[in-house]
Amino acid sequence: MPGLSNGIGRSLLMLLMGLTLIASFAAPTTAWAQDEPAPETVDEATEAVEETAEEAAEEEEAYSYDWETSEISEEMFTVNNLWIMIAGMLVFIMHLGFAMVESGLTRAKNTVNILFKNVMVVMIGIVTYGICGWMIMYPGDWIVGDVFAFSFGIGGGGGFYDSGYDYAGLTPEYNPGYTVWTDFFFQAMFAATCCTIVSGAVAGRVKLLPFMIFCPLFIAFAYCVVGSWEWGGGWLNGPSAEEDVAGPFGLPEFADFAGSTLVHAVGGAGALAGALLLGPRLGKYAKDGTVQPIPGHSMPLATIGVFLLWFGWFGFNGGSELSAFGPGVSYVLVTTTFAACGGGLAAASISWILGGKPDLSMTLNGILAGLVGITAGPDVPSWIGAFIICGIIPGLLVYFSVIFLDKIKIDDPVGAISVHGTCGIYGTLAVGFSGGFDGGQFAIQAIGTFAGVGLAFVVALAIFGALKVAMGIRVSESEEIEGLDLGEHDMAAYPDFQQTMIKSYHAAEL
Amino acid sequence: MPGLSNGIGRSLLMLLMGLTLIASFAAPTTAWAQDEPAPETVDEATEAVEETAEEAAEEEEAYSYDWETSEISEEMFTVNNLWIMIAGMLVFIMHLGFAMVESGLTRAKNTVNILFKNVMVVMIGIVTYGICGWMIMYPGDWIVGDVFAFSFGIGGGGGFYDSGYDYAGLTPEYNPGYTVWTDFFFQAMFAATCCTIVSGAVAGRVKLLPFMIFCPLFIAFAYCVVGSWEWGGGWLNGPSAEEDVAGPFGLPEFADFAGSTLVHAVGGAGALAGALLLGPRLGKYAKDGTVQPIPGHSMPLATIGVFLLWFGWFGFNGGSELSAFGPGVSYVLVTTTFAACGGGLAAASISWILGGKPDLSMTLNGILAGLVGITAGPDVPSWIGAFIICGIIPGLLVYFSVIFLDKIKIDDPVGAISVHGTCGIYGTLAVGFSGGFDGGQFAIQAIGTFAGVGLAFVVALAIFGALKVAMGIRVSESEEIEGLDLGEHDMAAYPDFQQTMIKSYHAAEL
Amino acid sequence: MPGLSNGIGRSLLMLLMGLTLIASFAAPTTAWAQDEPAPETVDEATEAVEETAEEAAEEEEAYSYDWETSEISEEMFTVNNLWIMIAGMLVFIMHLGFAMVESGLTRAKNTVNILFKNVMVVMIGIVTYGICGWMIMYPGDWIVGDVFAFSFGIGGGGGFYDSGYDYAGLTPEYNPGYTVWTDFFFQAMFAATCCTIVSGAVAGRVKLLPFMIFCPLFIAFAYCVVGSWEWGGGWLNGPSAEEDVAGPFGLPEFADFAGSTLVHAVGGAGALAGALLLGPRLGKYAKDGTVQPIPGHSMPLATIGVFLLWFGWFGFNGGSELSAFGPGVSYVLVTTTFAACGGGLAAASISWILGGKPDLSMTLNGILAGLVGITAGPDVPSWIGAFIICGIIPGLLVYFSVIFLDKIKIDDPVGAISVHGTCGIYGTLAVGFSGGFDGGQFAIQAIGTFAGVGLAFVVALAIFGALKVAMGIRVSESEEIEGLDLGEHDMAAYPDFQQTMIKSYHAAEL
Repeated sequence: MPGLSNGIGRSLLMLLMGLTLIASFAAPTTAWAQDEPAPETVDEATEAVEETAEEAAEEEEAYSYDWETSEISEEMFTVNNLWIMIAGMLVFIMHLGFAMVESGLTRAKNTVNILFKNVMVVMIGIVTYGICGWMIMYPGDWIVGDVFAFSFGIGGGGGFYDSGYDYAGLTPEYNPGYTVWTDFFFQAMFAATCCTIVSGAVAGRVKLLPFMIFCPLFIAFAYCVVGSWEWGGGWLNGPSAEEDVAGPFGLPEFADFAGSTLVHAVGGAGALAGALLLGPRLGKYAKDGTVQPIPGHSMPLATIGVFLLWFGWFGFNGGSELSAFGPGVSYVLVTTTFAACGGGLAAASISWILGGKPDLSMTLNGILAGLVGITAGPDVPSWIGAFIICGIIPGLLVYFSVIFLDKIKIDDPVGAISVHGTCGIYGTLAVGFSGGFDGGQFAIQAIGTFAGVGLAFVVALAIFGALKVAMGIRVSESEEIEGLDLGEHDMAAYPDFQQTMIKSYHAAEL
Repeated sequence: MPGLSNGIGRSLLMLLMGLTLIASFAAPTTAWAQDEPAPETVDEATEAVEETAEEAAEEEEAYSYDWETSEISEEMFTVNNLWIMIAGMLVFIMHLGFAMVESGLTRAKNTVNILFKNVMVVMIGIVTYGICGWMIMYPGDWIVGDVFAFSFGIGGGGGFYDSGYDYAGLTPEYNPGYTVWTDFFFQAMFAATCCTIVSGAVAGRVKLLPFMIFCPLFIAFAYCVVGSWEWGGGWLNGPSAEEDVAGPFGLPEFADFAGSTLVHAVGGAGALAGALLLGPRLGKYAKDGTVQPIPGHSMPLATIGVFLLWFGWFGFNGGSELSAFGPGVSYVLVTTTFAACGGGLAAASISWILGGKPDLSMTLNGILAGLVGITAGPDVPSWIGAFIICGIIPGLLVYFSVIFLDKIKIDDPVGAISVHGTCGIYGTLAVGFSGGFDGGQFAIQAIGTFAGVGLAFVVALAIFGALKVAMGIRVSESEEIEGLDLGEHDMAAYPDFQQTMIKSYHAAEL
Repeated sequence: MPGLSNGIGRSLLMLLMGLTLIASFAAPTTAWAQDEPAPETVDEATEAVEETAEEAAEEEEAYSYDWETSEISEEMFTVNNLWIMIAGMLVFIMHLGFAMVESGLTRAKNTVNILFKNVMVVMIGIVTYGICGWMIMYPGDWIVGDVFAFSFGIGGGGGFYDSGYDYAGLTPEYNPGYTVWTDFFFQAMFAATCCTIVSGAVAGRVKLLPFMIFCPLFIAFAYCVVGSWEWGGGWLNGPSAEEDVAGPFGLPEFADFAGSTLVHAVGGAGALAGALLLGPRLGKYAKDGTVQPIPGHSMPLATIGVFLLWFGWFGFNGGSELSAFGPGVSYVLVTTTFAACGGGLAAASISWILGGKPDLSMTLNGILAGLVGITAGPDVPSWIGAFIICGIIPGLLVYFSVIFLDKIKIDDPVGAISVHGTCGIYGTLAVGFSGGFDGGQFAIQAIGTFAGVGLAFVVALAIFGALKVAMGIRVSESEEIEGLDLGEHDMAAYPDFQQTMIKSYHAAEL
């Protein structure tokens, strides 16, 4: 598996390159100003206008993709491109969903901290993906590097766009379905997801600064490297992706449609590493072995979050079809919906039957479990298969996984390890049997899942470990009790409301 | 009207069939596993891969719809299909809107219960629609039954999709605008709406389990049956829908574009039945005849809900055009917008003028009233007509309807009966005059509305009545006072916050 | 600059005309009823149906746009039209974003008032735009006036739609990208934005009724007039927009892609005028010169708001491309995203470095600052330029602008003047250098910005000034202390929760 170490080496190199390039932009406007001196008289200005018009004409001519001989019509290209752009917007709004689920399911005293982390992670993810992530993930794709060379002004021209209309990246030459920018937009929106998942598991006790340092490193070294193995044409994608023959070890190609492993289980593995290194929140596990539930502070926020995640998942899975054409997208929307329903109904039922009363937060996590469970192969099962195998089973799994983690005293405030880790692994394996059992497929699914989760876990452990040694990763005991909002931000999420200790929620005066 | 009793008989049959089929899936993976034994050696695995490739080639060949001779181009089919998919997503997010409106306008102590009900209803609605609803609603449509036979593995093949590429449902042969899956996706998102409406009217006192049982029955026996009369080509749709001539009784065809009656008034009728059987909340109507207002606990949640409903309504009405082509959708978006504006402005004004101060919750309900009012015929009036006839009038109606219901002591915590029932009936009738008065049209509108609302009311009364006898439908007095969150779920929505009795909100220390 | 006074004169005329027309609709249904008498017998009804069918056939024939000879194919027209409609929906949901940001960043006791204002402003904006705004903004566009003549029944026919299928506005004759209704839908959604911005700056002390009167006047006399200068083909758009040559004074054409000045700085100028005339909230500025921070009451609401604004901005900027075709939209989405990231990261960093702790509300405002900063020219810079020039710099600007306004005792509760005013002006100027410095462009950007901001400021000052004299614009001291929710609405936003004075948020028992 040379891809593995290569991937890490490359990501380190790219990160350094990226930082150097950013540094070289200390005075970008000056450089550009020298290209075109400001016109000093009105005549010069008019001339400048005419020049601009000429340039525009040249550009238009240069953007002379021949649609007549193209395999795809201009109309189909436009509608495909539109769908992937909209799918990117839907994935974007999932980050609001994550922020709401995570803050809703934790204490009010940590809400500002959680919102801040989630807002920052989105931006850090996109910027990291722009600087180096994309290049790590798609190393064989010449045009990507080229775009960035252009962007940084290396390849000639001041800035990409002016000289960009003749650029193949904007035509089916780059991709027969969307422009290079649509590609980036859609993919960059995914990048932060793995860190948002980690964020949930370390909530309520992680120091802010080390977590902010963790994020770009985990994205570059775990998410983008593992992604390159499959989506970037790496070893899991087989020797010849185009002919669609066997993958590594004579097995079929690894299948992970929209990222049950590549996104969710990778995030879940990082979450597990973080939770292990941090230890549980104060008071969560009593010395006599009892588990003290620490309920979330706002169930409406958690519900908003899950609905928005489900809504965004239509873009996450439907957009991963990478085409608006054909039956694919509509079928994927239906199986995704049934998996979410199966997961939610199963988790509600099991919590009702075994727990005595139906648990809303478990039901919400069950919906997410179903969505994670279908993500590896929404195009594989029948809709009944999606409902049962990719929905009901993950919905049950997440229930037992949450209980199991509490039993072994791994504290995961929002259930992120269970939802994204356990169900991500299960969902990837399920591709091997949800469309009828296929041993070879199952074997490669197991190999790919194990490798991806393994690398992500090791990388997260290494980063968090190094940060723990260097600066500590856990807030002080008094800050944890008072809440991270005051400790890390000197702000309160709800300064107008009287807050109380959690145990009194059963009191009669409620 | 043979369609009426036939509809109910059919829905009973389908429900039983559906449950039998579900039961037969106790061990579906085993059955599938037997179709294709797992390869035991690497050679076998390679062989399996080759077989898969062959199968794929065959499938591709089979999916040989001839676009050259098609009336619709592949591009137009794709863009139409894309719009209906997006419209389905917009209708989906309306369920978050309903959840927010309903929880925002009721007490904090019942919030978990309301959120749970709304989350469950979405999933129950989609699954009910999948199992039997679609078949009840579109009985004459051979392809629908066929798809389900395929899905359940009856028609051959293990699971639908593998053998599905040659399927007419994915081409304009099924529908010249979208695939069979897009059709299902869009329609299934509507199914839960009628129960969500009921949920609002019975909030704060209904037992959880009987309400969960009510939902699939009401969807199957009321929503889908009434829907089949019009959208399924039943008696309201006239003897010959294709030639677009007269409907029943020599009158024009009944018109209900996106469901003022078929969705909203049906839900409103069920809401009325539920509110009648349950009786008002404790303390709502004093013995001296005064009405004690029980304000909602969070106006931001209610506002989020109404904005999301308005947003989703663009898909609800715009998607019901069933085409992205032509001026239709853009016109429908404009009239829908003006109706919402008219309703909200009218309700705000009347509450300001008659009530002394402008009432936010009335304004929000006015917006919904306008949206319900335009839903039967957004393609009929001019934009000024939409503003006045389908907006302002429902906005006034909802104000007086809320007051009237309180006068006759029907307790509807969120105003669901007024918004969806009163304005749904009005909106359907308004098709007879909002584009110029048309007596024949008005007559058939009245007949269709009366029949639909009548059946839904009777069905809801029957189901709730049977459940009342069998298990009781109202929580105990002490549970109602303490709140359903603790009684039904043993959870609190806001455990970190001190809560107080409602009457103190006027206190100076606020 | 004759356009300036002409614009105001025209807007006054149009407003009066609009009101007269509205008044003439006192009994519209009667008038329409006379056109087509209700059929009295079944025979007549059948006849009526046949007539309708005939009419439909005629209409269909009349809608005979010849796509064969059209420059744009029917498919491309449909997909373009679809994108602009979706963009309009995205802009719509920004209003929920504004409502959440504004209520989240202010006190709980003013929440109902703020939500009510924001809900009303959306509806007032759309209706104002329908009655007169569109005609003021696009005076040279014959078809717009024509549509309205049609709509009001002046041009013949009762209502627009019935006789509308032959209408050029629904074909590429009107616009080679979308129908007349799509155009209106997209544009009307923008109209309210400028008032929503003002709403934030005057929150917590402005009387409701005068603000409701201010809104339609400011939209008609400021937003639509300034908009007509550029988007309506006025003096900033140059003598000949079609040939795309020089603008006024021999300079290039003024560039404001989606409205950094035309929407945001105009709103910011109105916000400044309002804040100046109202004065600061009680207790905000102590006599010893210290500034008392009045934190928002709900950071989750503010976060929801910013995410929704970012989400909606994809439609705001991407839709302003006015086409789904070509690389434009996807490029604009990428630069918009990077500007938002730059703004948020910069504001977070500067607040962390200079303020000691990272400030969530400043970070959220930084994201908005970046979005405002890129809006004037998202098609101009490279993505790195967008990140630095249109993102990081506005993110720093907003931080210092907020501090500066506090220093000169202008109280802006949510930072609206800084975000939309300061960064809107900066963003418009930045078009002159973000794609390489261009002196002529910079000069016209400065002229256009100065003129637009100046007019908006003067108009807002005049309206608020007149209202101050006529009826007073500030609530009483006791109402301000108790909160505008009780004073203006006799409602509370959170009646179930105990609220407390703000200063205690640092208390240990939190």
